[in-house]
Amino acid sequence: VVKIPAAHLDTPCLVIDLDVVERNVRRLQAELDGRGVALRPHFKTHKLVPIARLQLEAGAVGITAGTLGEAEVLAEAGIHDVFVAYPVWAGGPKADRLRDLHERIRLSVGVDSAEGARQLARAVGGHRLPLRVLVELDAGLHRTGAADPAAAVEVAEAARAAGLDVRGVFTHGGHAYAGRSAGADAAGDEVTVLLAARDALAGAGFEIETASAGSTPTRMLSAQPGITEIRAGTYVLNDRQQLMLGSAEPDELAAWVAATVVSRPGPGQMVIDAGAKSLTKDRADYLEGFGLLPDHPDAVIQRVFDYHGAVSLPAEGPMPAIGDIVRVVPNHVCPVVDLFDTALIVRGGDVVDRWPVDARGRSG
Amino acid sequence: VVKIPAAHLDTPCLVIDLDVVERNVRRLQAELDGRGVALRPHFKTHKLVPIARLQLEAGAVGITAGTLGEAEVLAEAGIHDVFVAYPVWAGGPKADRLRDLHERIRLSVGVDSAEGARQLARAVGGHRLPLRVLVELDAGLHRTGAADPAAAVEVAEAARAAGLDVRGVFTHGGHAYAGRSAGADAAGDEVTVLLAARDALAGAGFEIETASAGSTPTRMLSAQPGITEIRAGTYVLNDRQQLMLGSAEPDELAAWVAATVVSRPGPGQMVIDAGAKSLTKDRADYLEGFGLLPDHPDAVIQRVFDYHGAVSLPAEGPMPAIGDIVRVVPNHVCPVVDLFDTALIVRGGDVVDRWPVDARGRSG
Repeated sequence: VVKIPAAHLDTPCLVIDLDVVERNVRRLQAELDGRGVALRPHFKTHKLVPIARLQLEAGAVGITAGTLGEAEVLAEAGIHDVFVAYPVWAGGPKADRLRDLHERIRLSVGVDSAEGARQLARAVGGHRLPLRVLVELDAGLHRTGAADPAAAVEVAEAARAAGLDVRGVFTHGGHAYAGRSAGADAAGDEVTVLLAARDALAGAGFEIETASAGSTPTRMLSAQPGITEIRAGTYVLNDRQQLMLGSAEPDELAAWVAATVVSRPGPGQMVIDAGAKSLTKDRADYLEGFGLLPDHPDAVIQRVFDYHGAVSLPAEGPMPAIGDIVRVVPNHVCPVVDLFDTALIVRGGDVVDRWPVDARGRSG
Repeated sequence: VVKIPAAHLDTPCLVIDLDVVERNVRRLQAELDGRGVALRPHFKTHKLVPIARLQLEAGAVGITAGTLGEAEVLAEAGIHDVFVAYPVWAGGPKADRLRDLHERIRLSVGVDSAEGARQLARAVGGHRLPLRVLVELDAGLHRTGAADPAAAVEVAEAARAAGLDVRGVFTHGGHAYAGRSAGADAAGDEVTVLLAARDALAGAGFEIETASAGSTPTRMLSAQPGITEIRAGTYVLNDRQQLMLGSAEPDELAAWVAATVVSRPGPGQMVIDAGAKSLTKDRADYLEGFGLLPDHPDAVIQRVFDYHGAVSLPAEGPMPAIGDIVRVVPNHVCPVVDLFDTALIVRGGDVVDRWPVDARGRSG
């Protein structure tokens, strides 16, 4: 039930409950502290500098970014330690951007190819400090990353030869998103792959200080001996996907989209003003529809158009009226946050602030 | 082949070829002029004021918007005649926004319920000019709109009783997107439904000046006697979906996303830096993958993550190198434009400008 006065809700709008965020931040930090594993939360989920600050104040060692653009927003906000967990190609305008960032903050960058490493080195040129890099490993998602320890050593040696400072290894066990039972296996893969690569690199003469794993479903499962850092992102807001994967509880859902019922075309049907431009079309195979209406759990957002969401509800159940405001928990919160210029910040039912989504659109 | 110098391309970035845009604008305007049917192009596709101006200069009678936010951007730019083709619920902050717009420009708004009509009337209050409304009809998409002429008359009578100025009827035959053969039927439905509703409203004493149909696939098929206006939007940029539906030719594709190859994990595989936050996950059932690489037509963007696109190519064919820039034509261009703050404007291979995406994020 939406307790926020409608006068505050110019729908569709993104609402973030700061009480829940703070609880999520504290909980994961405490759990990882208990294991002696560092947390470097991913910025791409929330893109909000104030939340990054909360994470750092709670004990995070730094922030993970997905793009140079996100890292620039963090640097601009005075956040000093950023790892871009991406095999950045530092060509074109990105060469200068990378060099600038390297001069301003304690930057580290992902690398998964010799070509990428050499281009990073060219971009930073003769800077007094070599650029820190972490070699990416593929733990089974089959997206980016060296396929095995031997390939990781080849990348690391090319990076060293180019003048980069190889500090560690990282991976993302995103195959944890395949379903509810996938998390444990993906975490096992993350740990196995990272420890093998770490040992291979140590054997090749590298001083490996970081072995970084990360996804929200594997965040505690991968916090094992030898793993130094976890890079979970979604845990801070959570979404329907995390709920279905069993990696978040309902009281850990911190973000939702407020939408207005604009039409009721027939029995058991309503149309809301949140469509693909506010909910996205992100829908994992195990999800029905394009979001969860927590106050109408049997409702299904069957179709989304740019500005319309077509919802079915049990015809005999309670039906919101035209003009009513409903809450929608996104299937996948990361691309949803990226659609909004601002987030309405609430604590319980009270609006306490409105924040710009600082890194919205910083996809490169 | 990307002829634009890499120094201009900070990937992922949105590129719009203005030569193609101008040709698309002129062509549809001329075709509709030939039928004596007005064009009121939809702003939600391009969200660029300069393109709206091109459309008006070519002869469009006004602009269609999907939200009050888009209409505000148009009003701010001095564009005077805007139809919001949406059943706007004018509650909360939208009441004042609607009233302001009604004072500033020649605004008309969609309506498909008596409740919605009464709320529109409350919002504009005792303004000296009644608000113009068009009654929406469902032509078969089953999204919004009165189900039949009798229902349309009921909505129109409620609107008139509330003090609104009922000027016409409109529909969107979006079921044209079901597949290549769906356009003709959807156009037939648009025409049939609008003419029947027009006649019913005339019989109930309404002076109906506008019968407005619209979608890009039906844009010419629905330009029949009695239909006064077409509201196509996508035709100006086009996308892979329009190509597959047979409603655009390859030389009418005006927009693409430039992306850099950042990784080559194995034979026939590459990863580009355009993912779901720049291409969306929009994918009609009849499309394979998340975009078209026109210079590598056998490539398939198999998976998109926030910042990664995982592409497969024939292993024996030419493979772009890490660092190469490739073009991606979006599956559905409307939500893609909405992800970018700026568009790089080119003519052929030359960069001529960079425009802000004026109405980016104006989803409400």
